[in-house]
Amino acid sequence: MGLSYRGSAYLGWQSQPGGQTVQDRLEAALATFAARPVRTACAGRTDAGVHGLNQVVHFDAPVAREPFSWVRGTNRYLPPDIAVQWCQPVPADFDARRHARGRRYAYLLRESVARPALEAGLVGWVFRPLDQAAMEAAAAHLIGTHDFSAFRAAGCQALSPVKEMRRIAITRRGALWRFEVEASAFLHHMVRNLMGCLVAVGQGSRPPDWMAEVLASRSRERAAPTFAPDGLYFLGPVYDAALGLPEHNASIDWLP
Amino acid sequence: MGLSYRGSAYLGWQSQPGGQTVQDRLEAALATFAARPVRTACAGRTDAGVHGLNQVVHFDAPVAREPFSWVRGTNRYLPPDIAVQWCQPVPADFDARRHARGRRYAYLLRESVARPALEAGLVGWVFRPLDQAAMEAAAAHLIGTHDFSAFRAAGCQALSPVKEMRRIAITRRGALWRFEVEASAFLHHMVRNLMGCLVAVGQGSRPPDWMAEVLASRSRERAAPTFAPDGLYFLGPVYDAALGLPEHNASIDWLP
Repeated sequence: MGLSYRGSAYLGWQSQPGGQTVQDRLEAALATFAARPVRTACAGRTDAGVHGLNQVVHFDAPVAREPFSWVRGTNRYLPPDIAVQWCQPVPADFDARRHARGRRYAYLLRESVARPALEAGLVGWVFRPLDQAAMEAAAAHLIGTHDFSAFRAAGCQALSPVKEMRRIAITRRGALWRFEVEASAFLHHMVRNLMGCLVAVGQGSRPPDWMAEVLASRSRERAAPTFAPDGLYFLGPVYDAALGLPEHNASIDWLP
Repeated sequence: MGLSYRGSAYLGWQSQPGGQTVQDRLEAALATFAARPVRTACAGRTDAGVHGLNQVVHFDAPVAREPFSWVRGTNRYLPPDIAVQWCQPVPADFDARRHARGRRYAYLLRESVARPALEAGLVGWVFRPLDQAAMEAAAAHLIGTHDFSAFRAAGCQALSPVKEMRRIAITRRGALWRFEVEASAFLHHMVRNLMGCLVAVGQGSRPPDWMAEVLASRSRERAAPTFAPDGLYFLGPVYDAALGLPEHNASIDWLP
């Protein structure tokens, strides 16, 4: 199934003893609906405060129900800021994480003299103007297969720091910047650390080529501080088209 | 000054004894910054759960400060979901409400089989498909100067139910419908009552011409139920350009 959620009130995706995580809420709702315990595994764990647009999870259904019954039935027991968007059967060996050929994230950043309020928790904020060409030049250094240790948080559990960065697209619309990033996989805090560096370049604190130095150093100490989670959205995993799983969640385009 | 706020946590704009309103929070912040009591008056009172993008307020400044100092200084004492966006001096006789020549609202409505989660509280929701042409035909009946009593809540304090409806624009982008409405002024619950009727027409429960019947009846009992406040945004007042007040808040375009 695919889920969307606002991460602001949760300690991230992964289950914890206190229960204040998205996975804990989902598994509790599934267990209530199915009247059996259900364990889930997701495509990409999100941190505290990070939002999900098309988080994909798989589980072994303990009871037989129509796909849309799982959507409606599970949503009945989920809080307002978490909802299943779709559900469909998959081959028995499907694994939401291992079958993902890539992951996509977006970071929304508002550039304005006053802080955001309506979008609090949903966008990052900078008050100094950003230079798009400088950020694009910096981002270009990251494209390709690299050791991303410089952007890796302490405690990251990935087996290898080598990932393929496929695309960093930077667009602007009024006061709102959108950074869309696609890679084979991401290290812990990788997008937020990358955002910290892009903003340092965008605001002129560092030249674009500094990004290449940071990457080559493989040292977290060279990079900028980790950026706020507020504007970070896990757009979802990328699967083989043959699986026929919804890649985009149509709900992501909203603009007041 | 112009404010933006997410209305979800508040009992609307207008000050109440309990203090859980946007006006109460603003006046408390202003009083702390100015070290004097400050009373404000706004361009358009919003209901509980309704958001503001460019709510304009005026007040007599008890101390002399630079305009941007009022923005930064007041924001320091406001909660994350309320923020002053701009501030500028106005003629002594300026009145945020009386000088407004019109008001604009937007309603965001998501059409999807599953309920929204990421946008909970920020969009309305329908699961049955909407017919744009039918809704536009219904909306056309409302354009012009009419007695809008059929869309007026009990307890509305407006002196007259006659208002000039200038524009109703209905656009769609993916799963998201946007209704933008401009009128000389609005009665209490007028946009939400109007939305209830438009959705009834859009889903085929009523024909477009039924809107003309509802309007002509001047009876609240003929109209559809009041729609949820979740997707309603006060875009702001319309002033004479000569006043030089910011009409749009650049922050309103965000799309994850």
